[in-house]
Amino acid sequence: MFCSFVRLAAPIAAALLYIAPITTAFAEEPGLWKVYNETLKGAKYVDLTHTITPNIPVWAGFGKSSFGQAAAGTDLEGYAKKGDTFTYEKHGFNASTYNLATDQLGTQLDPPAHWAPEYAAIDEIPATYAVRPLVVINIEDKVKADAGYHLQVADITGFEEKHGRIPEGSVVFVRSGWYKKWPDPSLSTTRPFPGVSLDALKFLHLERKILFHGHEPLDTDTTPTLEGEHWLMHNGFAQAEGVANLDKVPETGALVAIGYPKFGGGVGGYARYIAICPPDWQYGVTVGSVPEAPLQKFDKPLHFDEKAGMRLR
Amino acid sequence: MFCSFVRLAAPIAAALLYIAPITTAFAEEPGLWKVYNETLKGAKYVDLTHTITPNIPVWAGFGKSSFGQAAAGTDLEGYAKKGDTFTYEKHGFNASTYNLATDQLGTQLDPPAHWAPEYAAIDEIPATYAVRPLVVINIEDKVKADAGYHLQVADITGFEEKHGRIPEGSVVFVRSGWYKKWPDPSLSTTRPFPGVSLDALKFLHLERKILFHGHEPLDTDTTPTLEGEHWLMHNGFAQAEGVANLDKVPETGALVAIGYPKFGGGVGGYARYIAICPPDWQYGVTVGSVPEAPLQKFDKPLHFDEKAGMRLR
Repeated sequence: MFCSFVRLAAPIAAALLYIAPITTAFAEEPGLWKVYNETLKGAKYVDLTHTITPNIPVWAGFGKSSFGQAAAGTDLEGYAKKGDTFTYEKHGFNASTYNLATDQLGTQLDPPAHWAPEYAAIDEIPATYAVRPLVVINIEDKVKADAGYHLQVADITGFEEKHGRIPEGSVVFVRSGWYKKWPDPSLSTTRPFPGVSLDALKFLHLERKILFHGHEPLDTDTTPTLEGEHWLMHNGFAQAEGVANLDKVPETGALVAIGYPKFGGGVGGYARYIAICPPDWQYGVTVGSVPEAPLQKFDKPLHFDEKAGMRLR
Repeated sequence: MFCSFVRLAAPIAAALLYIAPITTAFAEEPGLWKVYNETLKGAKYVDLTHTITPNIPVWAGFGKSSFGQAAAGTDLEGYAKKGDTFTYEKHGFNASTYNLATDQLGTQLDPPAHWAPEYAAIDEIPATYAVRPLVVINIEDKVKADAGYHLQVADITGFEEKHGRIPEGSVVFVRSGWYKKWPDPSLSTTRPFPGVSLDALKFLHLERKILFHGHEPLDTDTTPTLEGEHWLMHNGFAQAEGVANLDKVPETGALVAIGYPKFGGGVGGYARYIAICPPDWQYGVTVGSVPEAPLQKFDKPLHFDEKAGMRLR
């Protein structure tokens, strides 16, 4: 945040006064740092998340969301008048505003309170939703033959015959290829789309006791009652929607990092999913191979584009 | 999401048609699943994230944010008229709306584009910002003696004398105790508050090459120019703000899971940080020890409280 008035012309104290000559390494790497150094540090990271913009596919029943630039909410003497948009040039910083017509937007984690108010809202999900084994079941070929194909129990048992039993507590994402047209607006209304059958959901939760499943489309199935989502939510299960890049991760052996802000009483979750894949995996970026600190510097500056309704370069 | 009209009275196909008698375990746990089973599964998870509500402390220069209930954005024949609020009773689901006056809200990940448009926005941060070693430097005692104390290089070298060198690529959070008054609205205006000195930031980034640092308050320091944040952002470094519960995690040996949605061109990040601590750590929850799937069921249903401006139980 930005809480006092920047005088851009003020001299910045640049002297680094003291650098201690410490070169001690850890005699033994403490706790989980050893695990990180030996395994996660060399992993391949694949983002499974769509970028949210005002123009991504969303259910037509919701209103339109918009992005903006933050403005002064009050008079700030000698700095900004109420309503002035904060700019890099005048104020030294920018901030974003969001008018979000729904929380069912982009890549999501649906808490069961989306349909069932007696179950957990997004801020009531425990901290153990953090990193889990990731299972990817591929129905892309079946969807190519039948655009409305839904994952069946037989697909799961077929997966297990090849790969072994799905681990309890894992996250199971269904790869259908639907995401590849994203963010084509026609995705909002194209029917049929690939889904997950109610029997498959019951099998995954009741027989395999997974943490949650996820799919590429914005709905779980194409039944008139949305029977799969109905069953999940009314039985206290979360689900991921709008998941991307599942063709870039292995079917077994990866982990998934799960992140989302905690909006109080929120019944949807703007989510981030990152697959952490074994070091020899063909896709993904590794720690240190991309600009991290400092982050990437671009030739074109970020600026708010009124036509796009968002900041672009 | 919710994309067709639910007929709540419709029969739900409940029969689980086929359960395969597969009991195969993995002969060898593939890839990183073994790492999860042997280390992360038994860890203690501590949430370092504040819940975002319309009433949390925020810089007074920004306007007020509000939460709402999603309404039909268009006429939906036989289901809802444009403007009708979606309800559990009539429509089978709820969704949230957010009118967010700023992205500098709650627990955050600031991308450098917050101040420097040539550097990465929130959606331009690479997927390797996912899980990292977590270092916690404790200045709580010094802050008790001096509410405006700022982390000094000597505090970092003192930490290293005790714990060894801070690992390259780690996340360094500064424990000051400031968060304990959260969400007291007076936190927005209380001066002084504990900070991080520019020299300490330079030491952490230039000498130790950390990924990013974080602090409990909503600003990095109390200088008139915000010299620390200015230096970070204009040199391409991200930072975490509004971090909580640092007195509940170890100074070394934990990891931190980093998550935030990818708003296109966003110059702030609504973030989630979860510390993953060694199994023998005294705080935190473990996988399987809390309701996860199904999630917690509450006696009181979630409902929108007009006075609070958000859903409560």
